[in-house]
Amino acid sequence: MTTRRNFVKKAGAGLLAASAVPLLVGQNSCTNSAPQKDPDAKFNLSVAGYTFAKFDIDETLEVLQQLDLHYLCIKDFHLPMTSTDEEIAAFKAKLAAKNVTGYAAGPIYMKTEAETDAAFDYARRVGVKLIVGVPNHEMLPYVEKKVKEYDFRYAIHNHGPDIDLYPNATDVMKYIKDLDPRIGLCLDIGHTVRDGLNPIADIENYHDRLFDMHLNDATGAGKSEKICIIGRGVIDIPLLVRTLKKIGYAGACSMETGTENKEDTVRIVAESAGYFKGVVTALK
Amino acid sequence: MTTRRNFVKKAGAGLLAASAVPLLVGQNSCTNSAPQKDPDAKFNLSVAGYTFAKFDIDETLEVLQQLDLHYLCIKDFHLPMTSTDEEIAAFKAKLAAKNVTGYAAGPIYMKTEAETDAAFDYARRVGVKLIVGVPNHEMLPYVEKKVKEYDFRYAIHNHGPDIDLYPNATDVMKYIKDLDPRIGLCLDIGHTVRDGLNPIADIENYHDRLFDMHLNDATGAGKSEKICIIGRGVIDIPLLVRTLKKIGYAGACSMETGTENKEDTVRIVAESAGYFKGVVTALK
Repeated sequence: MTTRRNFVKKAGAGLLAASAVPLLVGQNSCTNSAPQKDPDAKFNLSVAGYTFAKFDIDETLEVLQQLDLHYLCIKDFHLPMTSTDEEIAAFKAKLAAKNVTGYAAGPIYMKTEAETDAAFDYARRVGVKLIVGVPNHEMLPYVEKKVKEYDFRYAIHNHGPDIDLYPNATDVMKYIKDLDPRIGLCLDIGHTVRDGLNPIADIENYHDRLFDMHLNDATGAGKSEKICIIGRGVIDIPLLVRTLKKIGYAGACSMETGTENKEDTVRIVAESAGYFKGVVTALK
Repeated sequence: MTTRRNFVKKAGAGLLAASAVPLLVGQNSCTNSAPQKDPDAKFNLSVAGYTFAKFDIDETLEVLQQLDLHYLCIKDFHLPMTSTDEEIAAFKAKLAAKNVTGYAAGPIYMKTEAETDAAFDYARRVGVKLIVGVPNHEMLPYVEKKVKEYDFRYAIHNHGPDIDLYPNATDVMKYIKDLDPRIGLCLDIGHTVRDGLNPIADIENYHDRLFDMHLNDATGAGKSEKICIIGRGVIDIPLLVRTLKKIGYAGACSMETGTENKEDTVRIVAESAGYFKGVVTALK
Protein backbone atom coordinates (compact mmCIF):
# COMPACT_ATOMS: atom_id res chain seq x y z
CA MET A 1 0.00 0.00 0.00
CA THR A 2 1.18 3.49 -0.77
CA THR A 3 2.07 5.26 2.44
CA ARG A 4 0.72 8.52 3.70
CA ARG A 5 3.05 10.99 2.00
CA ASN A 6 4.78 9.13 -0.80
CA PHE A 7 2.55 10.51 -3.54
CA VAL A 8 4.63 13.66 -3.27
CA LYS A 9 7.43 14.29 -5.74
CA LYS A 10 11.01 14.10 -4.60
CA ALA A 11 11.39 17.30 -2.60
CA GLY A 12 14.89 17.88 -3.97
CA ALA A 13 13.66 18.56 -7.47
CA GLY A 14 11.57 21.57 -6.58
CA LEU A 15 14.08 22.94 -4.12
CA LEU A 16 16.95 22.57 -6.51
CA ALA A 17 15.04 24.10 -9.39
CA ALA A 18 14.11 27.07 -7.23
CA SER A 19 17.63 27.63 -6.02
CA ALA A 20 19.14 27.02 -9.45
CA VAL A 21 17.39 29.93 -11.10
CA PRO A 22 19.22 32.78 -9.38
CA LEU A 23 22.53 30.94 -9.78
CA LEU A 24 22.01 30.60 -13.51
CA VAL A 25 20.54 34.04 -13.99
CA GLY A 26 23.65 35.46 -12.45
CA GLN A 27 24.54 39.09 -12.34
CA ASN A 28 23.29 40.23 -15.70
CA SER A 29 20.74 37.61 -16.70
CA CYS A 30 22.96 36.27 -19.45
CA THR A 31 25.12 33.21 -18.95
CA ASN A 32 28.59 32.87 -20.31
CA SER A 33 27.72 29.52 -21.85
CA ALA A 34 24.83 27.21 -22.54
CA PRO A 35 22.95 26.09 -19.43
CA GLN A 36 24.86 23.52 -17.44
CA LYS A 37 23.61 19.98 -17.11
CA ASP A 38 21.05 19.86 -14.34
CA PRO A 39 18.51 17.05 -14.60
CA ASP A 40 16.38 18.72 -11.95
CA ALA A 41 16.11 21.96 -13.91
CA LYS A 42 13.63 20.31 -16.29
CA PHE A 43 16.36 19.22 -18.71
CA ASN A 44 17.15 22.86 -19.55
CA LEU A 45 13.89 23.33 -21.38
CA SER A 46 14.31 26.60 -23.25
CA VAL A 47 12.72 28.66 -25.98
CA ALA A 48 14.19 29.79 -29.27
CA GLY A 49 13.30 33.45 -29.73
CA TYR A 50 11.94 32.68 -33.20
CA THR A 51 8.99 30.89 -31.58
CA PHE A 52 7.84 34.30 -30.36
CA ALA A 53 8.38 36.15 -33.64
CA LYS A 54 4.92 37.72 -33.34
CA PHE A 55 5.49 38.83 -29.72
CA ASP A 56 7.57 41.72 -28.47
CA ILE A 57 10.02 40.95 -25.68
CA ASP A 58 7.65 42.06 -22.90
CA GLU A 59 4.91 39.77 -24.21
CA THR A 60 7.44 36.98 -24.70
CA LEU A 61 8.68 37.25 -21.12
CA GLU A 62 5.12 37.29 -19.79
CA VAL A 63 4.40 34.03 -21.60
CA LEU A 64 7.68 32.48 -20.44
CA GLN A 65 6.72 33.34 -16.87
CA GLN A 66 3.26 31.81 -17.33
CA LEU A 67 4.87 28.66 -18.74
CA ASP A 68 7.56 28.49 -16.02
CA LEU A 69 10.33 28.65 -18.62
CA HIS A 70 13.63 30.32 -17.80
CA TYR A 71 15.96 30.12 -20.80
CA LEU A 72 15.82 32.04 -24.06
CA CYS A 73 17.95 32.03 -27.18
CA ILE A 74 17.89 35.72 -28.10
CA LYS A 75 16.68 36.59 -31.60
CA ASP A 76 17.43 39.90 -33.26
CA PHE A 77 13.81 40.99 -33.57
CA HIS A 78 13.69 41.06 -29.77
CA LEU A 79 17.09 42.72 -29.44
CA PRO A 80 18.32 44.25 -32.73
CA MET A 81 21.95 43.70 -33.71
CA THR A 82 22.34 47.48 -33.79
CA SER A 83 21.26 47.91 -30.14
CA THR A 84 23.30 50.31 -28.06
CA ASP A 85 24.92 49.13 -24.85
CA GLU A 86 22.17 50.99 -22.96
CA GLU A 87 19.47 49.16 -24.91
CA ILE A 88 21.21 45.85 -24.24
CA ALA A 89 21.41 46.67 -20.52
CA ALA A 90 17.68 47.48 -20.46
CA PHE A 91 16.91 44.22 -22.27
CA LYS A 92 18.98 42.23 -19.77
CA ALA A 93 17.22 43.93 -16.88
CA LYS A 94 13.86 42.85 -18.32
CA LEU A 95 15.05 39.26 -18.55
CA ALA A 96 16.45 39.32 -15.03
CA ALA A 97 13.16 40.67 -13.66
CA LYS A 98 11.40 37.57 -15.04
CA ASN A 99 14.14 35.13 -14.02
CA VAL A 100 14.92 34.42 -17.65
CA THR A 101 18.45 33.63 -18.78
CA GLY A 102 19.53 34.61 -22.28
CA TYR A 103 21.81 31.64 -22.95
CA ALA A 104 22.71 32.27 -26.60
CA ALA A 105 21.98 34.51 -29.59
CA GLY A 106 20.60 33.47 -32.95
CA PRO A 107 20.00 32.08 -35.41
CA ILE A 108 22.08 34.73 -37.20
CA TYR A 109 22.75 34.44 -40.94
CA MET A 110 26.33 35.38 -41.88
CA LYS A 111 27.05 35.98 -45.52
CA THR A 112 29.95 38.39 -45.21
CA GLU A 113 32.87 39.13 -42.91
CA ALA A 114 31.13 42.34 -41.84
CA GLU A 115 28.00 40.37 -40.81
CA THR A 116 30.17 37.86 -38.98
CA ASP A 117 32.05 40.63 -37.17
CA ALA A 118 28.76 42.25 -36.20
CA ALA A 119 27.37 38.97 -34.86
CA PHE A 120 30.37 38.22 -32.65
CA ASP A 121 30.47 41.78 -31.37
CA TYR A 122 26.74 41.64 -30.62
CA ALA A 123 27.08 38.35 -28.72
CA ARG A 124 29.99 39.75 -26.71
CA ARG A 125 28.05 42.86 -25.81
CA VAL A 126 24.96 40.79 -24.92
CA GLY A 127 27.15 38.62 -22.70
CA VAL A 128 26.62 35.19 -24.27
CA LYS A 129 29.36 32.85 -25.46
CA LEU A 130 27.23 30.71 -27.73
CA ILE A 131 26.09 31.87 -31.17
CA VAL A 132 23.55 29.97 -33.23
CA GLY A 133 24.58 30.75 -36.77
CA VAL A 134 23.99 30.04 -40.42
CA PRO A 135 27.27 31.01 -42.14
CA ASN A 136 27.75 30.83 -45.88
CA HIS A 137 30.18 28.01 -46.66
CA GLU A 138 32.88 30.46 -47.71
CA MET A 139 32.57 32.26 -44.36
CA LEU A 140 33.58 29.18 -42.35
CA PRO A 141 37.33 29.91 -42.21
CA TYR A 142 36.51 33.42 -40.99
CA VAL A 143 34.00 32.08 -38.44
CA GLU A 144 36.71 29.71 -37.16
CA LYS A 145 39.11 32.64 -36.77
CA LYS A 146 36.47 34.56 -34.79
CA VAL A 147 35.65 31.53 -32.63
CA LYS A 148 39.34 31.30 -31.68
CA GLU A 149 39.61 35.02 -31.09
CA TYR A 150 36.48 35.24 -28.87
CA ASP A 151 36.60 31.71 -27.40
CA PHE A 152 32.91 31.34 -28.26
CA ARG A 153 31.05 28.25 -29.27
CA TYR A 154 29.26 28.42 -32.61
CA ALA A 155 26.28 26.15 -33.32
CA ILE A 156 25.17 25.84 -36.94
CA HIS A 157 21.43 25.47 -37.39
CA ASN A 158 20.01 22.99 -39.94
CA HIS A 159 16.76 23.80 -41.70
CA GLY A 160 15.71 20.61 -43.46
CA PRO A 161 14.51 20.63 -47.05
CA ASP A 162 13.45 24.31 -46.96
CA ILE A 163 16.89 25.84 -47.45
CA ASP A 164 19.85 24.46 -49.40
CA LEU A 165 22.31 25.74 -46.81
CA TYR A 166 22.71 23.08 -44.10
CA PRO A 167 19.61 20.88 -44.48
CA ASN A 168 20.79 18.42 -41.81
CA ALA A 169 23.53 17.69 -39.29
CA THR A 170 25.40 15.31 -41.58
CA ASP A 171 25.70 18.11 -44.11
CA VAL A 172 26.91 20.54 -41.43
CA MET A 173 29.48 18.03 -40.19
CA LYS A 174 30.87 17.63 -43.71
CA TYR A 175 31.90 21.28 -43.60
CA ILE A 176 33.04 21.59 -39.98
CA LYS A 177 34.58 18.25 -39.05
CA ASP A 178 38.12 19.56 -39.49
CA LEU A 179 37.45 22.98 -38.02
CA ASP A 180 37.88 24.12 -34.42
CA PRO A 181 35.84 21.85 -32.08
CA ARG A 182 34.05 24.94 -30.77
CA ILE A 183 32.16 24.96 -34.07
CA GLY A 184 29.26 22.51 -33.85
CA LEU A 185 25.54 21.96 -34.19
CA CYS A 186 22.24 23.49 -33.22
CA LEU A 187 20.31 20.38 -34.20
CA ASP A 188 16.75 21.10 -35.32
CA ILE A 189 15.15 17.71 -34.80
CA GLY A 190 11.89 18.38 -36.64
CA HIS A 191 13.59 19.76 -39.75
CA THR A 192 15.95 16.76 -39.64
CA VAL A 193 12.94 14.43 -39.81
CA ARG A 194 11.42 16.50 -42.61
CA ASP A 195 14.75 16.01 -44.41
CA GLY A 196 14.28 12.24 -44.15
CA LEU A 197 16.96 11.67 -41.53
CA ASN A 198 17.11 10.47 -37.93
CA PRO A 199 17.85 13.21 -35.37
CA ILE A 200 18.40 10.69 -32.57
CA ALA A 201 21.15 9.01 -34.58
CA ASP A 202 22.61 12.50 -35.14
CA ILE A 203 22.67 13.12 -31.39
CA GLU A 204 24.63 9.92 -30.85
CA ASN A 205 26.92 10.32 -33.83
CA TYR A 206 27.76 13.98 -33.37
CA HIS A 207 27.41 14.29 -29.59
CA ASP A 208 30.77 16.01 -29.16
CA ARG A 209 29.64 18.80 -31.48
CA LEU A 210 26.09 19.15 -30.16
CA PHE A 211 25.89 22.58 -28.47
CA ASP A 212 22.23 23.51 -28.87
CA MET A 213 19.00 21.97 -30.05
CA HIS A 214 15.77 23.16 -31.58
CA LEU A 215 13.14 21.00 -29.98
CA ASN A 216 9.96 20.34 -31.92
CA ASP A 217 8.28 17.47 -33.73
CA ALA A 218 7.36 16.74 -37.33
CA THR A 219 4.38 15.12 -38.98
CA GLY A 220 6.65 12.99 -41.16
CA ALA A 221 9.53 12.92 -43.63
CA GLY A 222 9.35 15.24 -46.62
CA LYS A 223 9.27 18.91 -47.46
CA SER A 224 5.46 18.92 -47.42
CA GLU A 225 5.42 17.62 -43.84
CA LYS A 226 5.05 20.15 -41.03
CA ILE A 227 6.75 21.07 -37.80
CA CYS A 228 4.21 20.30 -35.06
CA ILE A 229 3.54 20.21 -31.33
CA ILE A 230 6.03 18.08 -29.41
CA GLY A 231 4.43 14.68 -28.86
CA ARG A 232 2.03 14.95 -31.80
CA GLY A 233 4.50 13.99 -34.53
CA VAL A 234 6.56 10.94 -35.39
CA ILE A 235 9.59 11.53 -33.12
CA ASP A 236 9.99 9.14 -30.22
CA ILE A 237 10.50 11.83 -27.55
CA PRO A 238 11.22 9.39 -24.68
CA LEU A 239 13.99 7.82 -26.82
CA LEU A 240 15.27 11.33 -27.57
CA VAL A 241 15.44 12.13 -23.84
CA ARG A 242 17.13 8.81 -23.05
CA THR A 243 19.70 9.51 -25.78
CA LEU A 244 20.40 13.02 -24.48
CA LYS A 245 20.98 11.51 -21.04
CA LYS A 246 23.21 8.82 -22.52
CA ILE A 247 25.51 11.35 -24.17
CA GLY A 248 25.39 13.62 -21.10
CA TYR A 249 24.00 16.50 -23.11
CA ALA A 250 24.61 19.73 -21.22
CA GLY A 251 23.04 22.22 -23.60
CA ALA A 252 19.58 23.67 -23.97
CA CYS A 253 16.51 21.99 -25.41
CA SER A 254 15.08 25.06 -27.05
CA MET A 255 11.52 24.79 -28.26
CA GLU A 256 11.12 26.08 -31.79
CA THR A 257 7.63 25.31 -32.95
CA GLY A 258 6.21 26.93 -36.03
CA THR A 259 3.05 28.94 -35.54
CA GLU A 260 0.98 31.39 -37.48
CA ASN A 261 -0.75 33.50 -34.84
CA LYS A 262 -0.14 34.63 -31.29
CA GLU A 263 -2.97 32.75 -29.60
CA ASP A 264 -1.92 29.46 -31.14
CA THR A 265 1.70 30.05 -30.16
CA VAL A 266 0.94 30.04 -26.45
CA ARG A 267 -1.19 26.89 -26.66
CA ILE A 268 1.37 25.09 -28.85
CA VAL A 269 4.32 25.97 -26.64
CA ALA A 270 2.31 25.15 -23.50
CA GLU A 271 1.41 21.66 -24.71
CA SER A 272 4.94 21.09 -26.04
CA ALA A 273 6.53 22.21 -22.78
CA GLY A 274 4.14 20.06 -20.75
CA TYR A 275 4.85 17.02 -22.91
CA PHE A 276 8.62 17.38 -22.70
CA LYS A 277 8.54 18.01 -18.94
CA GLY A 278 6.25 14.99 -18.51
CA VAL A 279 8.61 12.73 -20.43
CA VAL A 280 11.68 14.01 -18.58
CA THR A 281 9.98 13.60 -15.20
CA ALA A 282 8.73 10.09 -16.00
CA LEU A 283 12.23 9.00 -17.07
CA LYS A 284 13.98 10.32 -13.96
CA MET B 1 24.10 3.27 -33.11
CA THR B 2 20.48 4.19 -33.64
CA THR B 3 19.32 2.87 -36.98
CA ARG B 4 17.78 4.79 -39.81
CA ARG B 5 14.12 4.75 -38.81
CA ASN B 6 13.96 3.82 -35.17
CA PHE B 7 13.46 7.34 -33.92
CA VAL B 8 9.88 6.95 -35.03
CA LYS B 9 7.21 6.08 -32.50
CA LYS B 10 5.60 2.68 -32.60
CA ALA B 11 3.36 2.94 -35.64
CA GLY B 12 0.58 1.01 -33.91
CA ALA B 13 -0.12 3.78 -31.45
CA GLY B 14 -1.13 6.34 -34.03
CA LEU B 15 -3.05 3.86 -36.14
CA LEU B 16 -4.93 2.49 -33.19
CA ALA B 17 -5.76 5.91 -31.82
CA ALA B 18 -7.07 7.00 -35.20
CA SER B 19 -9.23 3.93 -35.64
CA ALA B 20 -10.42 3.98 -32.04
CA VAL B 21 -12.13 7.35 -32.29
CA PRO B 22 -15.02 6.36 -34.56
CA LEU B 23 -15.50 3.15 -32.59
CA LEU B 24 -15.84 5.04 -29.34
CA VAL B 25 -17.82 7.90 -30.76
CA GLY B 26 -20.33 5.41 -32.06
CA GLN B 27 -23.64 6.27 -33.51
CA ASN B 28 -24.65 9.16 -31.31
CA SER B 29 -21.37 10.46 -29.90
CA CYS B 30 -22.21 9.30 -26.38
CA THR B 31 -20.88 6.06 -24.98
CA ASN B 32 -22.91 3.76 -22.84
CA SER B 33 -20.15 3.64 -20.25
CA ALA B 34 -16.85 5.21 -19.31
CA PRO B 35 -14.16 4.92 -22.00
CA GLN B 36 -12.71 1.44 -22.18
CA LYS B 37 -9.12 0.75 -21.25
CA ASP B 38 -6.94 1.48 -24.22
CA PRO B 39 -3.33 2.36 -23.44
CA ASP B 40 -2.85 3.65 -26.95
CA ALA B 41 -5.74 6.09 -26.65
CA LYS B 42 -3.60 8.38 -24.48
CA PHE B 43 -4.83 6.78 -21.24
CA ASN B 44 -8.37 8.11 -21.87
CA LEU B 45 -7.33 11.69 -21.27
CA SER B 46 -10.60 13.58 -20.96
CA VAL B 47 -11.99 16.90 -19.86
CA ALA B 48 -14.49 17.65 -17.13
CA GLY B 49 -17.00 20.14 -18.52
CA TYR B 50 -16.44 22.39 -15.50
CA THR B 51 -12.97 23.25 -16.84
CA PHE B 52 -14.73 25.10 -19.66
CA ALA B 53 -17.28 26.90 -17.48
CA LYS B 54 -16.51 30.18 -19.25
CA PHE B 55 -16.84 28.64 -22.74
CA ASP B 56 -19.99 27.73 -24.58
CA ILE B 57 -20.11 24.24 -26.08
CA ASP B 58 -18.98 25.39 -29.54
CA GLU B 59 -15.95 27.13 -28.08
CA THR B 60 -15.28 24.13 -25.84
CA LEU B 61 -15.33 21.72 -28.76
CA GLU B 62 -13.06 23.97 -30.79
CA VAL B 63 -10.49 23.91 -27.98
CA LEU B 64 -10.85 20.14 -27.53
CA GLN B 65 -10.13 19.73 -31.23
CA GLN B 66 -7.07 22.00 -31.00
CA LEU B 67 -5.85 19.98 -28.02
CA ASP B 68 -6.55 16.61 -29.67
CA LEU B 69 -8.88 15.61 -26.82
CA HIS B 70 -11.87 13.37 -27.47
CA TYR B 71 -13.73 12.73 -24.21
CA LEU B 72 -15.95 15.09 -22.25
CA CYS B 73 -17.88 14.76 -19.02
CA ILE B 74 -20.98 16.81 -19.83
CA LYS B 75 -21.81 19.65 -17.46
CA ASP B 76 -25.27 21.22 -17.27
CA PHE B 77 -24.14 24.69 -18.34
CA HIS B 78 -23.23 23.16 -21.71
CA LEU B 79 -26.40 21.05 -21.89
CA PRO B 80 -29.08 22.17 -19.41
CA MET B 81 -30.92 19.48 -17.44
CA THR B 82 -34.15 20.84 -18.91
CA SER B 83 -33.03 20.32 -22.52
CA THR B 84 -35.58 18.84 -24.88
CA ASP B 85 -34.79 15.66 -26.78
CA GLU B 86 -34.26 17.81 -29.87
CA GLU B 87 -31.76 20.00 -28.04
CA ILE B 88 -29.95 16.91 -26.79
CA ALA B 89 -29.82 15.50 -30.31
CA ALA B 90 -28.36 18.77 -31.61
CA PHE B 91 -25.77 18.75 -28.81
CA LYS B 92 -24.77 15.17 -29.63
CA ALA B 93 -24.42 16.04 -33.30
CA LYS B 94 -22.02 18.85 -32.37
CA LEU B 95 -19.90 16.45 -30.33
CA ALA B 96 -19.91 13.85 -33.10
CA ALA B 97 -18.80 16.45 -35.65
CA LYS B 98 -15.68 17.09 -33.56
CA ASN B 99 -15.04 13.42 -32.73
CA VAL B 100 -15.78 14.07 -29.06
CA THR B 101 -17.43 11.42 -26.89
CA GLY B 102 -19.64 12.52 -24.01
CA TYR B 103 -18.73 9.71 -21.61
CA ALA B 104 -20.62 10.85 -18.48
CA ALA B 105 -22.70 13.69 -17.03
CA GLY B 106 -21.90 15.80 -14.00
CA PRO B 107 -21.03 16.70 -11.40
CA ILE B 108 -24.72 17.00 -10.51
CA TYR B 109 -25.77 17.99 -6.97
CA MET B 110 -28.76 15.95 -5.70
CA LYS B 111 -30.50 17.23 -2.61
CA THR B 112 -33.98 15.84 -3.24
CA GLU B 113 -35.66 12.85 -4.86
CA ALA B 114 -36.94 15.15 -7.60
CA GLU B 115 -33.41 16.33 -8.39
CA THR B 116 -32.19 12.74 -8.38
CA ASP B 117 -35.00 11.67 -10.69
CA ALA B 118 -34.20 14.55 -13.04
CA ALA B 119 -30.49 13.66 -13.11
CA PHE B 120 -31.07 10.00 -13.99
CA ASP B 121 -33.65 10.91 -16.60
CA TYR B 122 -31.25 13.48 -18.09
CA ALA B 123 -28.40 10.95 -18.24
CA ARG B 124 -30.67 8.37 -19.89
CA ARG B 125 -31.83 10.89 -22.47
CA VAL B 126 -28.22 12.04 -23.10
CA GLY B 127 -27.22 8.41 -23.56
CA VAL B 128 -24.57 8.03 -20.86
CA LYS B 129 -24.54 5.36 -18.16
CA LEU B 130 -22.19 7.10 -15.75
CA ILE B 131 -23.28 9.98 -13.55
CA VAL B 132 -20.84 12.06 -11.53
CA GLY B 133 -22.89 13.11 -8.55
CA VAL B 134 -22.86 14.86 -5.21
CA PRO B 135 -25.88 13.44 -3.36
CA ASN B 136 -26.91 14.59 0.08
CA HIS B 137 -26.24 11.79 2.56
CA GLU B 138 -29.94 11.17 3.07
CA MET B 139 -30.39 10.74 -0.70
CA LEU B 140 -28.05 7.74 -0.88
CA PRO B 141 -30.71 5.04 -0.42
CA TYR B 142 -32.74 6.67 -3.18
CA VAL B 143 -29.65 6.97 -5.41
CA GLU B 144 -29.01 3.26 -4.86
CA LYS B 145 -32.58 2.46 -5.88
CA LYS B 146 -32.14 4.51 -9.08
CA VAL B 147 -28.76 2.91 -9.85
CA LYS B 148 -30.42 -0.52 -9.70
CA GLU B 149 -33.40 0.64 -11.75
CA TYR B 150 -31.27 2.24 -14.51
CA ASP B 151 -28.18 -0.04 -14.24
CA PHE B 152 -26.03 3.11 -14.23
CA ARG B 153 -22.77 3.67 -12.44
CA TYR B 154 -22.70 6.61 -10.04
CA ALA B 155 -19.39 8.27 -9.15
CA ILE B 156 -19.38 10.59 -6.13
CA HIS B 157 -17.08 13.58 -6.48
CA ASN B 158 -14.93 14.74 -3.53
CA HIS B 159 -14.16 18.43 -3.13
CA GLY B 160 -11.47 18.62 -0.47
CA PRO B 161 -11.66 21.15 2.36
CA ASP B 162 -13.95 23.55 0.43
CA ILE B 163 -17.22 21.71 1.01
CA ASP B 164 -18.27 19.60 4.01
CA LEU B 165 -20.05 17.09 1.80
CA TYR B 166 -17.52 14.45 0.69
CA PRO B 167 -14.13 16.11 1.24
CA ASN B 168 -12.22 12.96 0.27
CA ALA B 169 -12.59 9.38 -0.97
CA THR B 170 -12.30 7.86 2.50
CA ASP B 171 -15.27 9.95 3.56
CA VAL B 172 -17.24 8.87 0.47
CA MET B 173 -16.41 5.21 1.10
CA LYS B 174 -17.72 5.48 4.66
CA TYR B 175 -21.16 6.20 3.22
CA ILE B 176 -21.17 3.85 0.21
CA LYS B 177 -19.19 0.79 1.23
CA ASP B 178 -22.32 -1.26 1.90
CA LEU B 179 -24.30 0.13 -1.03
CA ASP B 180 -24.59 -1.30 -4.55
CA PRO B 181 -21.10 -1.68 -6.09
CA ARG B 182 -22.19 0.51 -9.00
CA ILE B 183 -21.93 3.45 -6.59
CA GLY B 184 -18.33 4.58 -6.40
CA LEU B 185 -15.87 7.44 -6.77
CA CYS B 186 -14.99 10.28 -9.06
CA LEU B 187 -11.68 10.88 -7.32
CA ASP B 188 -10.50 14.49 -7.52
CA ILE B 189 -6.80 14.07 -6.88
CA GLY B 190 -5.93 17.73 -6.34
CA HIS B 191 -8.71 18.32 -3.82
CA THR B 192 -7.64 15.11 -2.07
CA VAL B 193 -4.15 16.54 -1.64
CA ARG B 194 -5.59 19.86 -0.45
CA ASP B 195 -7.52 17.80 2.12
CA GLY B 196 -4.21 16.42 3.44
CA LEU B 197 -4.64 12.93 2.01
CA ASN B 198 -2.92 10.74 -0.55
CA PRO B 199 -4.89 10.23 -3.79
CA ILE B 200 -2.55 7.49 -5.01
CA ALA B 201 -3.26 5.45 -1.89
CA ASP B 202 -6.96 6.06 -2.55
CA ILE B 203 -6.59 4.66 -6.06
CA GLU B 204 -5.03 1.49 -4.68
CA ASN B 205 -7.36 1.14 -1.72
CA TYR B 206 -10.62 1.86 -3.50
CA HIS B 207 -9.75 0.64 -7.00
CA ASP B 208 -12.92 -1.47 -7.31
CA ARG B 209 -15.04 1.64 -6.78
CA LEU B 210 -12.99 4.03 -8.92
CA PHE B 211 -15.18 4.94 -11.92
CA ASP B 212 -13.96 8.40 -12.85
CA MET B 213 -11.20 10.80 -11.93
CA HIS B 214 -10.68 14.54 -11.89
CA LEU B 215 -7.12 14.98 -12.96
CA ASN B 216 -5.26 18.06 -11.76
CA ASP B 217 -2.48 18.91 -9.34
CA ALA B 218 -2.24 20.89 -6.11
CA THR B 219 0.33 23.24 -4.70
CA GLY B 220 0.21 21.48 -1.33
CA ALA B 221 -1.94 20.24 1.53
CA GLY B 222 -4.38 22.70 3.09
CA LYS B 223 -7.45 24.73 2.20
CA SER B 224 -5.29 27.72 1.25
CA GLU B 225 -3.41 25.63 -1.30
CA LYS B 226 -4.52 25.80 -4.92
CA ILE B 227 -5.43 23.45 -7.74
CA CYS B 228 -2.73 23.93 -10.38
CA ILE B 229 -1.40 22.81 -13.75
CA ILE B 230 -0.66 19.08 -13.91
CA GLY B 231 3.06 18.62 -13.27
CA ARG B 232 3.50 21.92 -11.41
CA GLY B 233 2.21 20.74 -8.03
CA VAL B 234 3.26 18.15 -5.48
CA ILE B 235 1.62 15.05 -6.99
CA ASP B 236 3.98 12.44 -8.39
CA ILE B 237 2.20 12.03 -11.75
CA PRO B 238 4.41 9.17 -13.01
CA LEU B 239 3.57 7.23 -9.81
CA LEU B 240 -0.11 8.06 -10.37
CA VAL B 241 0.06 6.66 -13.91
CA ARG B 242 1.93 3.54 -12.75
CA THR B 243 -0.73 3.01 -10.09
CA LEU B 244 -3.59 3.41 -12.57
CA LYS B 245 -1.90 0.81 -14.76
CA LYS B 246 -1.37 -1.48 -11.78
CA ILE B 247 -5.08 -1.50 -10.89
CA GLY B 248 -6.07 -1.74 -14.58
CA TYR B 249 -8.03 1.49 -14.40
CA ALA B 250 -10.51 1.57 -17.29
CA GLY B 251 -12.17 4.93 -16.66
CA ALA B 252 -11.44 8.43 -17.80
CA CYS B 253 -8.72 10.77 -16.56
CA SER B 254 -10.73 13.94 -16.80
CA MET B 255 -8.78 17.17 -16.49
CA GLU B 256 -10.42 19.56 -14.08
CA THR B 257 -8.12 22.50 -13.57
CA GLY B 258 -9.33 25.67 -11.93
CA THR B 259 -9.02 28.83 -13.98
CA GLU B 260 -10.25 32.37 -13.86
CA ASN B 261 -10.31 33.50 -17.48
CA LYS B 262 -10.69 31.96 -20.90
CA GLU B 263 -7.23 32.65 -22.23
CA ASP B 264 -5.59 31.06 -19.21
CA THR B 265 -7.86 28.03 -19.46
CA VAL B 266 -6.54 27.02 -22.86
CA ARG B 267 -2.92 27.44 -21.81
CA ILE B 268 -3.45 25.57 -18.53
CA VAL B 269 -5.28 22.66 -20.13
CA ALA B 270 -2.74 22.53 -22.98
CA GLU B 271 0.24 22.26 -20.63
CA SER B 272 -1.63 19.80 -18.38
CA ALA B 273 -2.62 17.61 -21.32
CA GLY B 274 0.91 17.69 -22.71
CA TYR B 275 2.40 16.74 -19.36
CA PHE B 276 0.03 13.82 -18.80
CA LYS B 277 0.49 12.53 -22.36
CA GLY B 278 4.25 12.85 -21.97
CA VAL B 279 4.25 10.83 -18.75
CA VAL B 280 1.95 8.15 -20.19
CA THR B 281 4.05 7.86 -23.36
CA ALA B 282 7.33 7.68 -21.45
CA LEU B 283 5.97 4.90 -19.20
CA LYS B 284 4.68 2.74 -22.06
